[in-house]
Amino acid sequence: MISKNQIKQISQLKQKKFREIEQKFIAEGIKVIQELIASDLKLIHIYSTEDFDFGVQPNLISQISESDLKKISALTNPNTCLAVFEIPALPQPKTEGLQVALDDIRDPGNLGTIIRLCDWFGISDLICSETTVDVYNPKVVQATMGSITRVNIHYVDLKKYLEQTDLPIYGTFMDGENIYNEKLATDGIIVMGNEANGISAEIEKLVSNRISIPRFGTLQATESLNVATATAITLSEFRR
Amino acid sequence: MISKNQIKQISQLKQKKFREIEQKFIAEGIKVIQELIASDLKLIHIYSTEDFDFGVQPNLISQISESDLKKISALTNPNTCLAVFEIPALPQPKTEGLQVALDDIRDPGNLGTIIRLCDWFGISDLICSETTVDVYNPKVVQATMGSITRVNIHYVDLKKYLEQTDLPIYGTFMDGENIYNEKLATDGIIVMGNEANGISAEIEKLVSNRISIPRFGTLQATESLNVATATAITLSEFRR
Repeated sequence: MISKNQIKQISQLKQKKFREIEQKFIAEGIKVIQELIASDLKLIHIYSTEDFDFGVQPNLISQISESDLKKISALTNPNTCLAVFEIPALPQPKTEGLQVALDDIRDPGNLGTIIRLCDWFGISDLICSETTVDVYNPKVVQATMGSITRVNIHYVDLKKYLEQTDLPIYGTFMDGENIYNEKLATDGIIVMGNEANGISAEIEKLVSNRISIPRFGTLQATESLNVATATAITLSEFRR
Repeated sequence: MISKNQIKQISQLKQKKFREIEQKFIAEGIKVIQELIASDLKLIHIYSTEDFDFGVQPNLISQISESDLKKISALTNPNTCLAVFEIPALPQPKTEGLQVALDDIRDPGNLGTIIRLCDWFGISDLICSETTVDVYNPKVVQATMGSITRVNIHYVDLKKYLEQTDLPIYGTFMDGENIYNEKLATDGIIVMGNEANGISAEIEKLVSNRISIPRFGTLQATESLNVATATAITLSEFRR
């Protein structure tokens, strides 16, 4: 069972404003929910149309109707379950090793894919500009496939953050040095820019190492790579 | 102006069945349409709510209302213009150089991203299993950003195709050889597998070179990369 008031409160978590006030977010689908339960995240409650064994205390689960699930779900085609978790407090970013910084990434799918890449390549801190899409946006939570629990995602004033670091700052540009020939550091921050405009002018000034992924196609070939695929290639080069 | 009958015919092109009968597909948005016009593709007609200069004969353009555009558009939020193009006849795939083969890729966004990657890395032939999402699906056309005109995309019986080739066949698997240490050929076919199941058993048997992208995260890290980012890393390694 779920009350009208609960439906309203959970539905509000689709909006960033309410997630910030409540410090809660929603996750959908049994696979994602199970991964989040197995992590350090604090589960608030599960709403499920089926009688799954989530391995949690029974009072944390409510069985609800499909029509109620549809009301609280952020998906066009709701899954069988939705869970509410607490937004965790994060440790400060490490001051050594590799970090990825995102300058105004807008697409939830791109952020989700980049979080999975950080997880794969052992990047524990992902630094996001305040204009980057919210990691607790339901579409991002869905796209990360659980990697959200293993990467610390910090929202900061990116300009200030980069001004204060001692780490080298890498950025990809069309006119940068060929990434395949560069000696890449084991400590540093790799900045990836907005989908349409790339790295902004004020952040570009702070980049100490301009790198570039060479194009092998004809002169007419595409002018740019998708930011998630560019991140994949860049992280692979730093780690190989 | 656009007739009711035209609206019906264009709307039907959202379905693969009708695209195959008519040998036509739709593209939306001025940037994509301009790129396709500039290519070798044959333009059938443009429907636009605004008076753009597309640089084509005026009789190939109809100005239509926003509500009519909404009827023929495949987008939730239609753009200002939609064009119908002829599906081109393709030359046979080359028998040398690098090719990418897709074994049952289902997501239009993934196919679009992989086509852009082929364009960037100078791969002129992309071989798709018959179960792979149709390249002329409006979502794929949208996601390719024009790269669709520079990569030849062939739908084939993938098993037969791979049985007949003399090229080495690469496939990525968890237990493959570390891609960073392998000597990668300049001629070959790189097979990428389905989003959920990877490369199918019958295709796996035909793979001559099993490779793997190493994971650098903790033991708990994500088990798999998204297929488009795995393609990005693999193509970068072959070309670097």
